[in-house]
Amino acid sequence: MKQKRVPIELGEALRLIMARAKPGKTEVVPLTEAYGRYLAEDLIADHPVPWFDRVAMDGFALLSDDTRLATFDLPVQLKVVGSVGAGHLPQKKVSPGQAVRIMTGAAVPKGADAVVMLEATTQQETENGVFIQVKRPVKPGENIARKGEDTPQGAVLASRGRRISAGEMAMLATFGYHSVKVFTQPVVGIYVTGSELLSVEAPLEPGKIRNSNSYMLESQIRQLGAIPRFYGIIKDDPELCTRVVAKALEEVDYLIVTGGAADGDYDCIPYVCQSLQADVLFDKVAMRPGSVTTVAQIGSKWIFGLSGNPSACFVGFELFTRPVLRCALGATAHPHLPRSKAVLVHDIPNNKRITRLMRGLLEVRGSRVLASTVGVDKSGVASSLVQANGLLIIPGTGQPLHAGEEIEVMWLERPDEGHFYV
Amino acid sequence: MKQKRVPIELGEALRLIMARAKPGKTEVVPLTEAYGRYLAEDLIADHPVPWFDRVAMDGFALLSDDTRLATFDLPVQLKVVGSVGAGHLPQKKVSPGQAVRIMTGAAVPKGADAVVMLEATTQQETENGVFIQVKRPVKPGENIARKGEDTPQGAVLASRGRRISAGEMAMLATFGYHSVKVFTQPVVGIYVTGSELLSVEAPLEPGKIRNSNSYMLESQIRQLGAIPRFYGIIKDDPELCTRVVAKALEEVDYLIVTGGAADGDYDCIPYVCQSLQADVLFDKVAMRPGSVTTVAQIGSKWIFGLSGNPSACFVGFELFTRPVLRCALGATAHPHLPRSKAVLVHDIPNNKRITRLMRGLLEVRGSRVLASTVGVDKSGVASSLVQANGLLIIPGTGQPLHAGEEIEVMWLERPDEGHFYV
Repeated sequence: MKQKRVPIELGEALRLIMARAKPGKTEVVPLTEAYGRYLAEDLIADHPVPWFDRVAMDGFALLSDDTRLATFDLPVQLKVVGSVGAGHLPQKKVSPGQAVRIMTGAAVPKGADAVVMLEATTQQETENGVFIQVKRPVKPGENIARKGEDTPQGAVLASRGRRISAGEMAMLATFGYHSVKVFTQPVVGIYVTGSELLSVEAPLEPGKIRNSNSYMLESQIRQLGAIPRFYGIIKDDPELCTRVVAKALEEVDYLIVTGGAADGDYDCIPYVCQSLQADVLFDKVAMRPGSVTTVAQIGSKWIFGLSGNPSACFVGFELFTRPVLRCALGATAHPHLPRSKAVLVHDIPNNKRITRLMRGLLEVRGSRVLASTVGVDKSGVASSLVQANGLLIIPGTGQPLHAGEEIEVMWLERPDEGHFYV
Repeated sequence: MKQKRVPIELGEALRLIMARAKPGKTEVVPLTEAYGRYLAEDLIADHPVPWFDRVAMDGFALLSDDTRLATFDLPVQLKVVGSVGAGHLPQKKVSPGQAVRIMTGAAVPKGADAVVMLEATTQQETENGVFIQVKRPVKPGENIARKGEDTPQGAVLASRGRRISAGEMAMLATFGYHSVKVFTQPVVGIYVTGSELLSVEAPLEPGKIRNSNSYMLESQIRQLGAIPRFYGIIKDDPELCTRVVAKALEEVDYLIVTGGAADGDYDCIPYVCQSLQADVLFDKVAMRPGSVTTVAQIGSKWIFGLSGNPSACFVGFELFTRPVLRCALGATAHPHLPRSKAVLVHDIPNNKRITRLMRGLLEVRGSRVLASTVGVDKSGVASSLVQANGLLIIPGTGQPLHAGEEIEVMWLERPDEGHFYV
């Protein structure tokens, strides 16, 4: 006889998961392939920046002391004794009474202690050479970036676990990380179960629908920086399901199985977990949608039994699979969806005694985050996933929520900044 | 003699660019490759959802009228005449006095007009067959999702120009888009100029620094969904630069050249534009950093002459290259960085008469967006690009800004939701 499942609270479910989630393996990749990966080593400045006294402006390198008494009416005249482009080394020392034409990015020549902007000078060519007139005192250090001024040697510019974006790429290149130690991208297997499921190429048949969950999950997995592997559609056959799940777990450490998570006569997940002697963390969560979600481990491998219902599947992944994968990817600091408050734009009726996660639209108006629901929020309606960029947390108080109230929200990730682009 | 450049206002620069930016070509890709691309056709529901009256809960299909008088004390008894799993078609019509065991996702059998939850029944096996007892009236339509209830046929679920995220993928699959018309990913060429530039593999040499801009730009380009192509490092040699630029423009429609954008003796960009008779939209913008930015067209091809300074290069790309590429990618509705207001966390001194874009940190606290500056904001200091997830717009009023004030900000895109994860 089947045991009645006891739902656990969302917070408890997350606690159980996080107690077991672990960072994965690491590997070294060429810098050109590092974008979007997670650092497995601190990014350290192995030299100061600038690493030499660097000219910050096109102009003339000179001795500031020479210009101490310069005025508009009585300019100081200096002899131009050379010219240095960026990347070329100054050959000569600059002596009193001399100046060197110099470009942004060049090293400051010996002797010089300041650079006067090109525009602040006038030039004169005589039979004795080229001279410049400087019409005001130039301060010591003017237009020079001192060695180490921007970044001291040894500074940690990004920590292990940080996802590599454009700024990290620039810093990795600056410090010569032509290869980078990053966390290995976990491969996440996907099985969708359901005798009603057709492939996307198939014409509709009576009583059947097309598989959409695998495409959705592949996107969610890729968004995180992991690698999806779609294994296929399985009919509602617990024994078949058990065989293919066992086989897939020989290849991947993380396996998502959608559908068959409930207690119906054809539901596979409870059978699979029992047959494979899985360690079930939970099989029901006190929330909607996604209450019939199973998370289990076999050894160090993970099985996520998500609802076959697309919206519940989506939410189940974001709440339970995501933090495990973020940990595997090394991002231990922020495993969960970003969370904040938001001001409700409209009333939300609420007579439920269970926590609900409603698909919503988060927008910033002025400096305030506003929240509204999108479309029909029945868990069966997947079309609202298109508009949603957040989840509104509706507590199970049975009390309606009112426009103007602050509520808790979670921010969904999209390939662009979805909360502005909806 | 060189002409003094006349800086134009940022708004005017953007106006000039947007007047010429155009959507690019389109192509058809398999659904599996559509994630992150931009729709070039509306996503239309070609069938209603559900497309048959669908069972929403495991239970028994029956005639609601049979249960009209059911009470706890006087339950109605119905004969179970069959069982239907999801994906299987009901064979028999349900007649008065009968019920059919049925699973979530199955089509509602003929004759039945409601489903009673499994948990709300008790079952009895007798020599005459299996019977259920129903202890309360079941409403007509209960636990049935009516055909078209979620999405009517012909509904536009996502419009042309929308970037494809997980929700769009689910809908594309649902409606049988096994291939999708999307905008072609523009290829964006990158040349970095500067005799001081070393490759990332090279050991440091006196007076030289490593190229970091190409790695940064490649990331920025990929984040948008376009394809970077790095052409290499060029020395400060205007004639050489002109030759390679002309050659690259035979291959790509968009070319970024960093460095050499100023008026220094070795600066290439003005020379290139003149030699190739480019139509220069502007070559100086009244803003910092990135004032020496050139945007030019040769026919329908684009040249972006960005600063060699990493931070100014970064900002120049985000402000000027990004909207052109977003348009090419079909996203005409939102070409620019998302913009909002934010409350300043600290004072910002300001004696400048020029608009500044300071790298900043945007955080949501409560439901409010807060802004602060990160690191040293001199345009030469690239390390603050690691922390920054936004740009603070500091107007050139010469007036300091105070903590608690609302200012305008722009949100940078990152592979994760950077504004929470800094």
